Amino acid sequence: MRQPTSMPPRFGVNYTPRTGWFHHWLDFDLDAVRADLDAIAALGVDHVRMFAVWPLFQPNRGLVRPAALRQLGAMVDAAAERGLDVSVDGLQGHLSSFDFVPSWATTWHRQNLFTADGVVAGQAAYLTAIARELAGRPNFLGMSVGNEFSQFAGAQHPEPSTLTVAEAEHWLRTMLAACTAGAPHAEHHHSEYDAALFDPQHPFTPQLGARHGARTTVHSWIFNGTARRYGGLSEQSVRLAAYLVELARAYGTDPHREVWLQEIGAPAPHVSAAEAPEFARRTLEHVLDCHGLYGVTWWCSHDVGRELLDFPELEYSLGLIDQQQRVKATGSVVAAFAGARSALAAPAARAVGLVLEAGATSGDDLHAPLRATCAPGGAFFEAWMDLAIAGHRPAVVLAPFAADPAHLTARGITHLIQPAEVHAGT
Amino acid sequence: MRQPTSMPPRFGVNYTPRTGWFHHWLDFDLDAVRADLDAIAALGVDHVRMFAVWPLFQPNRGLVRPAALRQLGAMVDAAAERGLDVSVDGLQGHLSSFDFVPSWATTWHRQNLFTADGVVAGQAAYLTAIARELAGRPNFLGMSVGNEFSQFAGAQHPEPSTLTVAEAEHWLRTMLAACTAGAPHAEHHHSEYDAALFDPQHPFTPQLGARHGARTTVHSWIFNGTARRYGGLSEQSVRLAAYLVELARAYGTDPHREVWLQEIGAPAPHVSAAEAPEFARRTLEHVLDCHGLYGVTWWCSHDVGRELLDFPELEYSLGLIDQQQRVKATGSVVAAFAGARSALAAPAARAVGLVLEAGATSGDDLHAPLRATCAPGGAFFEAWMDLAIAGHRPAVVLAPFAADPAHLTARGITHLIQPAEVHAGT
Repeated sequence: MRQPTSMPPRFGVNYTPRTGWFHHWLDFDLDAVRADLDAIAALGVDHVRMFAVWPLFQPNRGLVRPAALRQLGAMVDAAAERGLDVSVDGLQGHLSSFDFVPSWATTWHRQNLFTADGVVAGQAAYLTAIARELAGRPNFLGMSVGNEFSQFAGAQHPEPSTLTVAEAEHWLRTMLAACTAGAPHAEHHHSEYDAALFDPQHPFTPQLGARHGARTTVHSWIFNGTARRYGGLSEQSVRLAAYLVELARAYGTDPHREVWLQEIGAPAPHVSAAEAPEFARRTLEHVLDCHGLYGVTWWCSHDVGRELLDFPELEYSLGLIDQQQRVKATGSVVAAFAGARSALAAPAARAVGLVLEAGATSGDDLHAPLRATCAPGGAFFEAWMDLAIAGHRPAVVLAPFAADPAHLTARGITHLIQPAEVHAGT
Repeated sequence: MRQPTSMPPRFGVNYTPRTGWFHHWLDFDLDAVRADLDAIAALGVDHVRMFAVWPLFQPNRGLVRPAALRQLGAMVDAAAERGLDVSVDGLQGHLSSFDFVPSWATTWHRQNLFTADGVVAGQAAYLTAIARELAGRPNFLGMSVGNEFSQFAGAQHPEPSTLTVAEAEHWLRTMLAACTAGAPHAEHHHSEYDAALFDPQHPFTPQLGARHGARTTVHSWIFNGTARRYGGLSEQSVRLAAYLVELARAYGTDPHREVWLQEIGAPAPHVSAAEAPEFARRTLEHVLDCHGLYGVTWWCSHDVGRELLDFPELEYSLGLIDQQQRVKATGSVVAAFAGARSALAAPAARAVGLVLEAGATSGDDLHAPLRATCAPGGAFFEAWMDLAIAGHRPAVVLAPFAADPAHLTARGITHLIQPAEVHAGT
């Protein structure tokens, strides 16, 4: 079995500017960014994820602002001066409950954000422009298409764009190609929120997540129902990230494909401020026991300032660093893991594969109509958790791959279990 | 009869920045603004209307950006250096087909833009902040609440906010009070698009337009159906502005209230580039024959650059000044009128009042359920135009005021005509 390429795993943070949050682009202050990056670098992490704001970078479809690109470049350079690599998300899109869609794609100009030719051409030009700006910088890791951009295709969205799985895949290919056009040698990703893993109607299926881009990305948030159902410090909550990593991996065709835990945070009130360090420690211990983990990027660097209104309450306290640039207790936990990462041994492959019948009829089928079983409280979710809590270190094997010995061998899986067997007392 | 206060009438332009259109706020360049204002001042006009962009000035409900206020102040000062007074619109809101609504009031945070407490409080704080910033500047005329903000309450809007007439009035009072709180001695307005005069369902009724703010404002656009029905250089089209001024005036309770023709433009292809100067000349001649006209503010100063995409085609050629800072033929017409304005005599009062039965049951009634008759092609529209074309200089008298001798006397109206009489051959 091929050794995973990313041992030790990377540790990083999602960079949320201390002053002005992502509105900082409107009052860009490189010295303020440098101060934030100083505090982040002091945690001992190796990378940050940075976020453009789409309507500010591309206020008109024909105008990707050169000044915005220069500012982003300066931010990446400031990170480099502090030994930090940078991955950049383009299409924001969505950040912490707020949507940012340019005026040329909303209300009177509203078009499908994934299928309208003009919109897609504009998005592609935008991603290429950012990637091109950053391509020559040695600490630039690559782009993510956009932070959970597929939220705009979810039925829960107030103004959803409707599309088919084939259209979703076409859009993904187009966006990733646009990133590659600008930065051919960088690693480009896309990110999905967990509804894509759970909602049987979501056009961004887990197969798309696991088969496009340089790696599979996972965003783990216990406010997805896990904390409410099981408790914020329950085994289920502190294993959610590990579960999502294994679950997302199951949909891949490449048995060696890495998974990037791109977002994980300790949201209040699901975990209190006092509980957050323990939540972080246990979550990280569990997820570091996942084979082929590329890295962990904590959400987020800095608390949101109270002078900014209308955020979901939890956003004001998600930072590892507070509004006075002081490292919080959870920040110390993440820093300790980051500092110890070079000593981490690669976890053994997971020998036990829990078989997931998500409704895919073959390894090539991009649909997963039965994926609701994977949501918190679902039969598959509970079976995996029960196995894990019992110490079995379960992987997940998509049903079409369960009969593929090469796939199983490549992943080191020697034993298959059906969910029904777990609840029968396996 | 009281002499109108604004003779000679003011001439001005709506300032559309040559580089970057209103996205210029993102790349604010005072020297570029100065160059634009030089070209505008050279037309001989006395004022400009300037536009903030709401989500850029107030990206979070709790943050009205000081830098944006400073930039706006610098723009007003640059105008002063060129002898130009400035009226500033706050809530954009809507500009040339594009809507700008901050992320804290849309999609996941979507609330009624006129009635939700948090949104209204945010809007009020924003308007007060702008007004306060500008209050001490001697060339600051005052605020307009926002450019045609009531579009967001129109049924034609893709995502309309629904509200009652009473709610619309309450919002207007709140917004105007917010302007006054910041600049107590300035003159504050609000602006309506012509659907408010024509659409019987629109909660912003003509009575609200004519009874709140320092003056009644009118936006005259022949693409409202007039050009299509009658032709771009038809008598109806070149008299549309005068008609709207007289129509809007009819809904006022103050017989001496002035009307400001805040927007008038020559839109292609309804009038060609070759026809635009004639359209401007005839339109201005007709509207200057309206008694109590405060001023005329042409839309707009500068053509939109072709590098900016997705504008309605007509927006690329509405400027009086082109992308090379050259005055266009229509600009020369407006400049000639502006230069001659001091010699203009106040037009005589209009002695003939065409009675409008808009469905208001009394002078205090704020509803106008029959106002569709005023739209292009409507019986009232046609009666007024026929009278005007026949040389009768018609004013408009709202039916409840037709039996009020004091009202008629104050306006100098000595003769009332019913629309049916016009078509009977009066």
